Amino acid sequence: MFQRLTIIGVGLLGASVAQAAKRNIPGILITVWARKPATRTKCAQQPWCDIVAATLEEAVKNADLVVIGAPVDVIPELVEQATSSLAPGAVVTDVGSTKGWICKRCTAVMPKGTTFIGSHPMAGSEKTGMGHARETLFEKSACFVTPMPSSAPETVEHVAHFWTQLGARVFVVTPEEHDRITAHISHFPHMLASCLCRYLATQCTEWKTFVGNGLRDTTRIAAGDPTLWESIFSSNRSELLKVVKGFQQELARFEGALRKGDAEQMHKLLQEAKGYRDAITPRKRK
Amino acid sequence: MFQRLTIIGVGLLGASVAQAAKRNIPGILITVWARKPATRTKCAQQPWCDIVAATLEEAVKNADLVVIGAPVDVIPELVEQATSSLAPGAVVTDVGSTKGWICKRCTAVMPKGTTFIGSHPMAGSEKTGMGHARETLFEKSACFVTPMPSSAPETVEHVAHFWTQLGARVFVVTPEEHDRITAHISHFPHMLASCLCRYLATQCTEWKTFVGNGLRDTTRIAAGDPTLWESIFSSNRSELLKVVKGFQQELARFEGALRKGDAEQMHKLLQEAKGYRDAITPRKRK
Repeated sequence: MFQRLTIIGVGLLGASVAQAAKRNIPGILITVWARKPATRTKCAQQPWCDIVAATLEEAVKNADLVVIGAPVDVIPELVEQATSSLAPGAVVTDVGSTKGWICKRCTAVMPKGTTFIGSHPMAGSEKTGMGHARETLFEKSACFVTPMPSSAPETVEHVAHFWTQLGARVFVVTPEEHDRITAHISHFPHMLASCLCRYLATQCTEWKTFVGNGLRDTTRIAAGDPTLWESIFSSNRSELLKVVKGFQQELARFEGALRKGDAEQMHKLLQEAKGYRDAITPRKRK
Repeated sequence: MFQRLTIIGVGLLGASVAQAAKRNIPGILITVWARKPATRTKCAQQPWCDIVAATLEEAVKNADLVVIGAPVDVIPELVEQATSSLAPGAVVTDVGSTKGWICKRCTAVMPKGTTFIGSHPMAGSEKTGMGHARETLFEKSACFVTPMPSSAPETVEHVAHFWTQLGARVFVVTPEEHDRITAHISHFPHMLASCLCRYLATQCTEWKTFVGNGLRDTTRIAAGDPTLWESIFSSNRSELLKVVKGFQQELARFEGALRKGDAEQMHKLLQEAKGYRDAITPRKRK
């Protein structure tokens, strides 16, 4: 199992990985590197941080596991930068929200004897940054691990075990299957919340005064970082476009029932929606 | 000000009105009536209930304010049933989520010397029933009061004051303006959440295992009562259809930016959405 962990990028997810690992994996040595010098200085004062490296190369050279805690669009370049300094047998993973292109690009650059296996812990939030990190962030959260066909089963097992140690429920799927699933249950719901907010903004911003908890919850994720989400959307474009199409047809179905005044059909649609929602487990308490 | 309050229908909203009134209005006498005998028996044991009437007519005869706490589709018939027994000067209001047709129909049947003025406290929940009622439900919630052009300003003021006493922030608008606002900020968001759930149900129910807090919150309201929401939708059909149309155009805008790979435009849309969401006040704590 991994004992020398390096975290590259210490935002919400990176810092939470460090905190959770420090708590749950006895004897683990944690090295971190962040692009901004101010963040590195802050890390040096944290109890979950054993070593702050001055460079990315320095940070990864002794690691048996490297976790890239950066936004999706910069993950491949950070992995590429790390390759020249990795120890033999090192495993690199990430926390990015899309997996197909990341796994393809990262796997292609890995030196012989080292491995990239993608991860995606479904524990992000509209609140970003180290300040919101917590050691319990991954507890009971789903975490995807997305090996390539060429990945050694034993290494996949090690990465899956690492997330299990942090409290996550791990699911091993292909990068393509991951992108199809998350387009449906994460990326498109985010687009929908943003789309609703922008539409309401064009109608009347004054109405915000009247907003109840329904709209508050429905739109919460639209407060997420636009730069982060733009890169998630564009790196999962083809799957996301399919979902948009399917949803438009579903919305047209609701619209049709409403237009026709077909109360029975509308009730049926709402009932089926409720059936789906009722089967989702409640929000875990912080 | 009102001192003899009658509540017809004691679900989440009706029972919360009773509890909040008992707490906040010194000396108020609260009479309730519910259709089901078992509910009436339960009410008789509640500290916020002074009198349980055997019939609706009996319940309203001494009231200076009657609050109809029933679903939208039965409000007009309950008001009509009450008219023969109302005391001179009595005021009747409701808690229904649509106002145009309710206010028109109820105003038309009111005997001379009595008044119907619609209300809509935006404090509902996907959790219904007396068991979820609480005396703080309306605190800081928005509450619409929707007079007709013929309503006496003094009576409007009394109804508005009643909701203020219960802790609500009151907004006086026409029934038509109310229906336009709530179609945007309540009814359509509900349809969208239901539509997303039903769409996901058609794709793969297995994916529920992976659901994170984002989708959990985005879809929470889809767990609401289908019968209640079907009648809200159908009683606000024309306004709701306009919103569906406007939203479809907005979704097509997001789709277009994604399809073209126009990262700058997508970022701008997400940024504008975030600007709207960031300006919404946080969820109040229970």
